[in-house]
Amino acid sequence: MHKSTQEDSRIHNSRLVLSTIYNRGETSRAEVARLTGLTRTTVSEIVGRFIEESLVTETGVSPSRGGKPAILLQVNDDARHLIGIDLANSEFRGAVVNLRGRVIRRLYLPVDELDGQAAVALVYSLIEQLMAHVERPILGIGIGTPGLMDPQKGIVRQAVNLDWHELPLGDLLRQRFNLPIYIANDSQAAALGEFTFANPGRHNNLVIIKVGRGTSAGIVLDGKLFHGDNSGAGEIGHVKVVEAGAACRCGNTGCLETVVSSRALLRQAREIARQDPDWMLNRLAPAPEMFTTETLLLAYASGDPRVIEMVAQAGRHLAVAVAYLASTLNINHIVIAGSLSRFGEGLVQPVREQVQKGTLASLARQTEITVSSLGGDIVILGAASLLLSNELGLNLTGTGPQQ
Amino acid sequence: MHKSTQEDSRIHNSRLVLSTIYNRGETSRAEVARLTGLTRTTVSEIVGRFIEESLVTETGVSPSRGGKPAILLQVNDDARHLIGIDLANSEFRGAVVNLRGRVIRRLYLPVDELDGQAAVALVYSLIEQLMAHVERPILGIGIGTPGLMDPQKGIVRQAVNLDWHELPLGDLLRQRFNLPIYIANDSQAAALGEFTFANPGRHNNLVIIKVGRGTSAGIVLDGKLFHGDNSGAGEIGHVKVVEAGAACRCGNTGCLETVVSSRALLRQAREIARQDPDWMLNRLAPAPEMFTTETLLLAYASGDPRVIEMVAQAGRHLAVAVAYLASTLNINHIVIAGSLSRFGEGLVQPVREQVQKGTLASLARQTEITVSSLGGDIVILGAASLLLSNELGLNLTGTGPQQ
Repeated sequence: MHKSTQEDSRIHNSRLVLSTIYNRGETSRAEVARLTGLTRTTVSEIVGRFIEESLVTETGVSPSRGGKPAILLQVNDDARHLIGIDLANSEFRGAVVNLRGRVIRRLYLPVDELDGQAAVALVYSLIEQLMAHVERPILGIGIGTPGLMDPQKGIVRQAVNLDWHELPLGDLLRQRFNLPIYIANDSQAAALGEFTFANPGRHNNLVIIKVGRGTSAGIVLDGKLFHGDNSGAGEIGHVKVVEAGAACRCGNTGCLETVVSSRALLRQAREIARQDPDWMLNRLAPAPEMFTTETLLLAYASGDPRVIEMVAQAGRHLAVAVAYLASTLNINHIVIAGSLSRFGEGLVQPVREQVQKGTLASLARQTEITVSSLGGDIVILGAASLLLSNELGLNLTGTGPQQ
Repeated sequence: MHKSTQEDSRIHNSRLVLSTIYNRGETSRAEVARLTGLTRTTVSEIVGRFIEESLVTETGVSPSRGGKPAILLQVNDDARHLIGIDLANSEFRGAVVNLRGRVIRRLYLPVDELDGQAAVALVYSLIEQLMAHVERPILGIGIGTPGLMDPQKGIVRQAVNLDWHELPLGDLLRQRFNLPIYIANDSQAAALGEFTFANPGRHNNLVIIKVGRGTSAGIVLDGKLFHGDNSGAGEIGHVKVVEAGAACRCGNTGCLETVVSSRALLRQAREIARQDPDWMLNRLAPAPEMFTTETLLLAYASGDPRVIEMVAQAGRHLAVAVAYLASTLNINHIVIAGSLSRFGEGLVQPVREQVQKGTLASLARQTEITVSSLGGDIVILGAASLLLSNELGLNLTGTGPQQ
């Protein structure tokens, strides 16, 4: 707590006005005044400044309802471009997006086995290539990275796959590109992406579980990313769920990730393929080591019962994590994302069934478990959302459509 | 978000001043001004009002350090009395406490098999008896109740043991006693109690797991109780943790409460006692049905290996819940309370061991699992804390000792 000053108030009011226009889609000065409780004069002053900066444009006149017709305002979605980056996959993904999260240009670069400084160089290259497609003033660069982060300092504390330890990625990028840089853990970024760009119910609380190469969650509470004491909130992938289970890359055994992740499914599929050379998957790839999530998706789509059961079994394991999340947080909207979410109902239906059976009935009834609609863009869009809230102060649901 | 007004600002500043004095213990007007950023004049005006209301007293003069000696201020801890009530046990517990949570008078009434309206009458009786011991202006009544709550409306949505469904307890008590009434779920109240009165590190985030007749958690985030979408946050007792486990009073089977609760331990002890009439517990009570948690504690204290193992096994089951809580929230301070916490290290050490083995190492290292020091008063003190924050606006750590 600190005392409120006039300057705080001025910034607060500007952000409130811009957020209101952004969240309403189309509105008038009078409506903004009514929704925010600010005076018409204050709203007009603030809107004037945004029009000068071309962030807001006048788009027409509202149909008259008796009184004087009002001039309509919109945020100019293409006034700025943003770069969003997703480092959580076997390829580094990036995109140029506009203020509404519309993708202008996507670019994926394969990581192969690059790590350490070579992986940093690949991030530079990805951003440089994307820069060539930025056609408007750029707001900054947002990054979603796997592993544990210090988001304040922009330091990647530990990203095992990339062999990054205490990497000051924020400073490195700021020095190189001289732009605002925001970095979050990939699941936390995914939660922001879902919250901002795929949240039609405008829920204030949201949990996303990203199931891909690893498994972790991102939690939005009261419209804000929840970080926990050491920015590790949502790191559920290494809870021990199987006694005497498989070895995990974290050093323990039987972690959630050893049974719920693309690696886990691929490991199982490879074992089956080696034991049963006639299995259909052996016709989909030259050798079991070359299986990818795509291979599994093909087999799943063609109805292979072993892949269907494998996915369902992952769903049942995931259900215990979901039950704990739902019971701990009592957040009604839980969204599954990441590459395994491409199995859709095959993964999610077993989760729903187990959660129904294994949670206090009145809480389970209210819990809605869905698959994200953002697909492979979710972390990129989350990174863009980080920029929107930090650079423009957009409160991305607080003043949303209220009917 | 809404615009800030002068009135908001005035209330905000008053609460800020009182919180600062309360949290500092002893301070001066100058120090309050420095800590809050308010002007000396504003602080003096506000302090003047609190002195008139006898909430703050001048207690002496600080040793001079060159300048003019400053007059010291303290919150007058006995300026008001509060009533705190805990309905979560086989007896209803209540106490009169002062503003610092010091217990003036405790009263426990056995519930026996009372439920429904008879249980409500017992609450009335408990409060009426406590009223006789209130010697100062009373701030109000705070209640911790088992089950699911609607804390805004003061409605107990569901408390199975008391057979309460959609009971408007808040309104009933307000009508009867004409005092401010605040109600929270018992675990949520326990979290507030721990946070306010047993939080020497002044952590802003805290999880308490209350293991007694049931098992549930209370979560304090950023100094405030976290409720979730339907006030059910922390209701972890009914996550299914044992396949084909025992029937639970919630209607499902194998819930956490069926293996981690005083009922679970008593059920196991009764089974052993019936199979082995020579077991020492049979000498501690006339019949296995008469075993209580006290019986188990006696046997535990005398080193009975079966009770020791039973408690350790409960700890290992509890560890999975703790691992999910620690990983989901990344909150470093997890406190075990409730009647089973009386087994102390016998319960908590197995939890620590399992959490170490079954959580991402860098998170597990930071997680501290302890037993609450508040014992049987924890819910009562939490109910008192509800009153302090709601009626006096005390921000119970925000402006704590900053060196």
